[in-house]
Amino acid sequence: MKILLQVGYIGSRYRGYQRQPGTGETIQTILEEALEKALGERVKTLAAGRTDKGVHSKAQMVQLEIKSQKAGKIPLERYPRTINPLLPEDIRIYGAWLAPESFHVRYSKSLKTYCYRLDTGAVPQLESVPFALHYPYPLDREKMEGAAATLIGTHDFSAFASRYSGVKDRVRTIWDCRLEESGPYYSLIIQGNGFLHSMVRIIMGSLLDIGRGRLDQGIFLEAIRSGNRRILGKTAAAKGLTLEAIEYEEVPELDQHSFGNRL
Amino acid sequence: MKILLQVGYIGSRYRGYQRQPGTGETIQTILEEALEKALGERVKTLAAGRTDKGVHSKAQMVQLEIKSQKAGKIPLERYPRTINPLLPEDIRIYGAWLAPESFHVRYSKSLKTYCYRLDTGAVPQLESVPFALHYPYPLDREKMEGAAATLIGTHDFSAFASRYSGVKDRVRTIWDCRLEESGPYYSLIIQGNGFLHSMVRIIMGSLLDIGRGRLDQGIFLEAIRSGNRRILGKTAAAKGLTLEAIEYEEVPELDQHSFGNRL
Repeated sequence: MKILLQVGYIGSRYRGYQRQPGTGETIQTILEEALEKALGERVKTLAAGRTDKGVHSKAQMVQLEIKSQKAGKIPLERYPRTINPLLPEDIRIYGAWLAPESFHVRYSKSLKTYCYRLDTGAVPQLESVPFALHYPYPLDREKMEGAAATLIGTHDFSAFASRYSGVKDRVRTIWDCRLEESGPYYSLIIQGNGFLHSMVRIIMGSLLDIGRGRLDQGIFLEAIRSGNRRILGKTAAAKGLTLEAIEYEEVPELDQHSFGNRL
Repeated sequence: MKILLQVGYIGSRYRGYQRQPGTGETIQTILEEALEKALGERVKTLAAGRTDKGVHSKAQMVQLEIKSQKAGKIPLERYPRTINPLLPEDIRIYGAWLAPESFHVRYSKSLKTYCYRLDTGAVPQLESVPFALHYPYPLDREKMEGAAATLIGTHDFSAFASRYSGVKDRVRTIWDCRLEESGPYYSLIIQGNGFLHSMVRIIMGSLLDIGRGRLDQGIFLEAIRSGNRRILGKTAAAKGLTLEAIEYEEVPELDQHSFGNRL
């Protein structure tokens, strides 16, 4: 039985989503331990995206295969209330769905939404401290919005990947890329069929430079053409980034419970 | 020169506001160390309220006296940007004001606002995890609202203080006490001239019992009459409580930068 979980977490305390050797806890390790306790069998999970150290998620999608009869008896709608008490409070399961056998959390066709939040106030709002980058500098928002729009479409995003990205095919389709203002918050909302390693953070870092007049509004088009990472801005800090939602064509009943879900 | 600071903090990591012997960091200790570095002199502070371990604040008011010429040269509007880089990011200075010599942060006439937040969703929103109590149980909100309103006025709140409260005069005036709903959040907003130790948390704990039919809607009036702590509910968890604002008659120019400031 193939099960799909929606997992939210505040990334601040963790070394990132994916299990890895070395010190520091990863979300995957903690999640698998809780699943094993709840389901009574050893569970291996596979996640839609490997969010980095410090990145948050409202909708990491995690696939697992359960085999035992005991585990199969837990109704899907009971997953959150059965497993959440076994997790630290900054990791939460929002829902569970049955996935078709053909489904693959990483390769099935999906639409992902990320949000990168800035708090532009002189002093950050308390609520934003865990979730937004504090950026109290004057920004030319029109230029930033103009540049963001140039990313929409199907492009080779080679220039937008960190050197740690091992992926060969770097063509991705961006369906939406815009900036939204709300009080002191200024957020990048970006939606696409996939993202390269650090891609959203490189886009945000470059947008900040565009907003401050250090980079040209046309820099994204130039980076797409040239594939040159070095002409873009720095990778923006992890803490401002949240994976907001993932939709799958193969699992249309996915009803994601994330706040501000823009799908 | 008497200076008044507005200090916000996420209480989760700390042992409470006030300096005390033993292990674990207090907000006061960290704040005084940063002030000493910034002002170049040893600083003793006095705060409006001693928020407990785990309680948050958007507007703790902190009074200090500076003596040296060097410290006196820092303009008040520069306090946030001078001192905040010396503080951990979950403690922030929002503003600084000159206070008259007669002013006393604890005894000068003031109006305090607290907010106690519940997240009533089946699974809590990620943003609320640090700031709200997760309470996914059915509540009779009309009864809670009716009971909350009975607290407004000048009463002897002896029954509403924890046993650790050393205060003798337990008469306080509550100007406003109401519940507000917004999405999955359900919050108690309470405003008064002062609060006893654990008072807001005891009120919230009792409101939860009223909402679930375990306590009568008239229980607050009975507690005021009898002074009997035991007829009320448990003290609600610290993490849902935020000190939202403090206004002083003697410092009318206080312009508090807190979000959702209801004054």
